[in-house]
Amino acid sequence: MVVEKGDRLILLTNDDGLYAPGLRALLEVMEEFGKVILISTVEGMSGMSQALTVKTPLRVKLLEETGSRKVYACNGTPTDSIKLAVNQLADKKPDWVVSGINHGSNASVSVLYSGTMAAALEGCLYGIPSVGFSLSSFSKTADFSPSKKFIRIIMMHLVNESLPDGICLNVNIPALPEDQIRGIRVCRQARGNWKEEFEKRRDPMGKTYYWLTGMFNNHEPDATDTDEWNLSNGYVSVVPVSVDMTAYGYIDTLKEKFGK
Amino acid sequence: MVVEKGDRLILLTNDDGLYAPGLRALLEVMEEFGKVILISTVEGMSGMSQALTVKTPLRVKLLEETGSRKVYACNGTPTDSIKLAVNQLADKKPDWVVSGINHGSNASVSVLYSGTMAAALEGCLYGIPSVGFSLSSFSKTADFSPSKKFIRIIMMHLVNESLPDGICLNVNIPALPEDQIRGIRVCRQARGNWKEEFEKRRDPMGKTYYWLTGMFNNHEPDATDTDEWNLSNGYVSVVPVSVDMTAYGYIDTLKEKFGK
Repeated sequence: MVVEKGDRLILLTNDDGLYAPGLRALLEVMEEFGKVILISTVEGMSGMSQALTVKTPLRVKLLEETGSRKVYACNGTPTDSIKLAVNQLADKKPDWVVSGINHGSNASVSVLYSGTMAAALEGCLYGIPSVGFSLSSFSKTADFSPSKKFIRIIMMHLVNESLPDGICLNVNIPALPEDQIRGIRVCRQARGNWKEEFEKRRDPMGKTYYWLTGMFNNHEPDATDTDEWNLSNGYVSVVPVSVDMTAYGYIDTLKEKFGK
Repeated sequence: MVVEKGDRLILLTNDDGLYAPGLRALLEVMEEFGKVILISTVEGMSGMSQALTVKTPLRVKLLEETGSRKVYACNGTPTDSIKLAVNQLADKKPDWVVSGINHGSNASVSVLYSGTMAAALEGCLYGIPSVGFSLSSFSKTADFSPSKKFIRIIMMHLVNESLPDGICLNVNIPALPEDQIRGIRVCRQARGNWKEEFEKRRDPMGKTYYWLTGMFNNHEPDATDTDEWNLSNGYVSVVPVSVDMTAYGYIDTLKEKFGK
């Protein structure tokens, strides 16, 4: 595949750290589309949601510069990284913000906790077409290469057409060999939550502490239009995600309660 | 006002720390409605969004216990605090999750970054009616007492009627004397973003660092149905917030691109 790169500038981050294989796989694909600014923490920073660093200063270090990429290490959250790159590091407004490939699914309500998706939401708030990619596997030996084909297909659509203001994409990819992935499906976010979320332990001093853990509880396992269903049935799920969280369908009822 | 408390259990948190005046004002009002479990970090933890603590253990300490309240210090984020309280500390499922009063507005896109609103979203994910309250002032001498009247009015509605599954309330209160607050308005989230977001400095070793800062940029200052407009025109804004971030209006267009 040959894409006209033009002067396309792509801002890339993730929340699994600078040397995560998912990030490296995504970097490879993005260099086919344009010049890349990659910015991330060295260590992973999972579950940071759209957290901001307000109490400590942020530091950035240019680690690598070639004709097609600049790689920065940053000590902030994925959202900080996007903010810093857009405001301080990029010579022009990036054309795309791309985040991932996350090591683990960000389907259903994980979109709310995910640093990877927060980076995409942050790009979206700047009016930049933004996509977060995740692989539905927490295995240490997860293979990110089958994802590349589908990332190319999705980004080709962005080459030809942009995204509406305030909407980014949450793309989750099943952890299957390429020829077993059945295609791409546009979905809605499945309803669900997490349960049995803590492991209670005692430290050597006899004091209690807790590890956050838990299992995902799908509230609608049979709904074929959800990201969870499609992902677990071999499809790449694409959910358009809105930065506007207003529950519009409930506004009129609330107005009856509280007055216009 | 006398409310039938019954065995109502209210889970209360914030992101400004255990001794924040906004939290104490909210605690006072909540004890009129039922028994309260208050859980928060000792220090503030602003801008944490729905971040989770996955790399370090969580610790909790019971600081105070009376007939009407239990106060816990926790080292986690507001979201961790809600999870810990629901899973490990409460004897029964709380009837309400209430968060705030945040020191500063959480209107418009601040809902995405706010730890206070994340706690309400977390309560909502457990199927618990949840509300986040914020005062639109960053002043050190901000007066939280005029808020109390409006908090009572909003919670009285929850006494009589619940919230739909997956929807919580984002309530922002203008920093005005009680008799200058013009009433309660149900609104949508204003479109906006942050700009000029960094202050670049040099440390004593001559190295660059950045402080996150910035100004809110309202994209639709004249839209009278938004939280921003109502808040700056003297109204308490109530936005119903959905944990489902799917951009439903864009699903059909995306399906045309990627196939059904």
